[in-house]
Amino acid sequence: MTKPHIKLFIPGPVEVSEDTFQAMSQPMIGHRGSGFQDLYAAIQPKLRQVLYTKNPVFLSTSSAWGVMEASVRNLVAKKVLNCCCGAFSDKWLDVSQRCGKQAEALKVEWGQPILPEMVDAKLKTGQFDAITLVHNETSTGLMNPLAEIAQVVKKYPDVMFVVDCVSSMTALKIDTDALGIDVLLAGVQKAWAMPPGLAVFAVSDRALKRAETIPARGYYFDFLEFKANHDKNMTPSTPSIPHIYGLNFKLDQFAKEGLDNRYARHRKMAQKTRDWAKANGFELFPKAGYESVTLTCVKNNKNIDVSKLQKALKDKYKVLIDGGYGPIKGKSFRLAHMGDETPETVGQLHTMLDDCLKSL
Amino acid sequence: MTKPHIKLFIPGPVEVSEDTFQAMSQPMIGHRGSGFQDLYAAIQPKLRQVLYTKNPVFLSTSSAWGVMEASVRNLVAKKVLNCCCGAFSDKWLDVSQRCGKQAEALKVEWGQPILPEMVDAKLKTGQFDAITLVHNETSTGLMNPLAEIAQVVKKYPDVMFVVDCVSSMTALKIDTDALGIDVLLAGVQKAWAMPPGLAVFAVSDRALKRAETIPARGYYFDFLEFKANHDKNMTPSTPSIPHIYGLNFKLDQFAKEGLDNRYARHRKMAQKTRDWAKANGFELFPKAGYESVTLTCVKNNKNIDVSKLQKALKDKYKVLIDGGYGPIKGKSFRLAHMGDETPETVGQLHTMLDDCLKSL
Repeated sequence: MTKPHIKLFIPGPVEVSEDTFQAMSQPMIGHRGSGFQDLYAAIQPKLRQVLYTKNPVFLSTSSAWGVMEASVRNLVAKKVLNCCCGAFSDKWLDVSQRCGKQAEALKVEWGQPILPEMVDAKLKTGQFDAITLVHNETSTGLMNPLAEIAQVVKKYPDVMFVVDCVSSMTALKIDTDALGIDVLLAGVQKAWAMPPGLAVFAVSDRALKRAETIPARGYYFDFLEFKANHDKNMTPSTPSIPHIYGLNFKLDQFAKEGLDNRYARHRKMAQKTRDWAKANGFELFPKAGYESVTLTCVKNNKNIDVSKLQKALKDKYKVLIDGGYGPIKGKSFRLAHMGDETPETVGQLHTMLDDCLKSL
Repeated sequence: MTKPHIKLFIPGPVEVSEDTFQAMSQPMIGHRGSGFQDLYAAIQPKLRQVLYTKNPVFLSTSSAWGVMEASVRNLVAKKVLNCCCGAFSDKWLDVSQRCGKQAEALKVEWGQPILPEMVDAKLKTGQFDAITLVHNETSTGLMNPLAEIAQVVKKYPDVMFVVDCVSSMTALKIDTDALGIDVLLAGVQKAWAMPPGLAVFAVSDRALKRAETIPARGYYFDFLEFKANHDKNMTPSTPSIPHIYGLNFKLDQFAKEGLDNRYARHRKMAQKTRDWAKANGFELFPKAGYESVTLTCVKNNKNIDVSKLQKALKDKYKVLIDGGYGPIKGKSFRLAHMGDETPETVGQLHTMLDDCLKSL
């Protein structure tokens, strides 16, 4: 508690505001009583608006991985196609197999996008009844062409479309129902700017129907349990009530800002950060045209000492950036610009970076 | 936010103190960085002391049900014996089956305890490789004779002993290793007096070895993933960092009070509440000798209007008691006395009850 506050510019968890913590610190209520039901019911229309869906939006007390695993457990009877383009999307293949499911990778190099024609080629084999896509691959700072891929998936009515928007949800418009997304999921410690501990996910009617046919779904992540409890404005198990208070607060904050303004702010922060990188002679790690709107993965083409840069920023300015994920550690670094950040605070980070780069 | 604060005397969630919320509101840290690893490492010895175990104690961002399901998924190859004596223990049978496992109930009437000889009779059939026991059945206010049952289970070295201590952990000594418990689990919204959203569980070596032999454990609740990450002072998935801050704070609070003092306080609150009930002509719901130390389930033998009593307490005193669970709603009511409560605050509740009972 006596440690200095290091401000996070890593791509999650991100900085959480004082008023968010305050909202989360309200007195406990029984999760089977009317107080909780009122809270849950109040949140639903706001969530549906932010996620552009008429589907119920469930609240899972878990990280997003819980819901990623749940999607496989609840929806896959034949075989799942896991689109792999970075650490998190790659891992989904492993998780699918660990759930005892048949799974196949559609794999591209890190930094490259999943393209609609690749998806089409796989799905047309008729082997698959589900596909998983990570919209915004956090490890590489890459955003896949969701709308174009969605058009392809729509051609295959038996294929469930599961989309991980962990680090993109609320930072740009994701038109869930129009895109035919069957499960849209995210944790709240990224663009939501809340502490980790809760996942939100929207599930389509046809996904619920599919779940009815799948055995051994278990209990904790059973989509049908979520639906049955949702119908009573409750969750299957005791939820993290502080997070649900926080979610409600954040949704009201989003409404005050206006969603379009929110999206414009995220685009502006992203552009500013890409411009900063290029002005400093850096390239971007993801393929041009597929850069993420919530974080910039900078290619270390100048071969700077990334860990030294991190340390300088932390020591001098009490801010933390990420030094690259797994195999691209040191060969890249990541700057997050999401949640409650603004073009101004992101600009401040750039100034700090400029200063610390000089001293390397 | 403008609603009045209703103090909870329901058996979970219970009242959370201001300083706990403050501890939970510290700035976020990266869950893959040294700050988090230091926090995790600092908590471990404290947790092991409170749980009387040399085993690692894992932190699951979920409710206790997640870990209850996990225990079945990770440990059952043959068949699990689910000891059923109330709503939560009964449900474990259903959950076991939903995980695709062979399961059988050892069932007694609500209010009756599971007795060691019943367990022996079942286990000696040789059909089972795991047994689940709810130590403190929250729905009936009954505490099963854990030590005596443990002696029986020890006779069967192939049987994994899974014990749910959701509403008893930290309120009395549970000698995990001496009792041969393979999985000891609880959520933190009961005697821990934290908000819901985290489960803690200790897993024995032999349970980890058993897990190695079980397919389709999945990822989110895979015991071996917990162990592999534990060895690096991390959790498999992004954890609820606020809850882990809170856990650390609570553990320090327990140490300051002294565990023996803590247990004595809980015994005193329980005795005082049982005395209050009897002095008012009420019987206790659970069989004599098996009353819970953390909550008192009062039998409504006087046929009072329980919901009217609840309403009077809420309106006049801003406190909430529970009106009985499921099939015994109205035929019983429950008074919790755990967590941060004291004989004094419990005495205040009794005075409020006295007053409201007069007005019925």
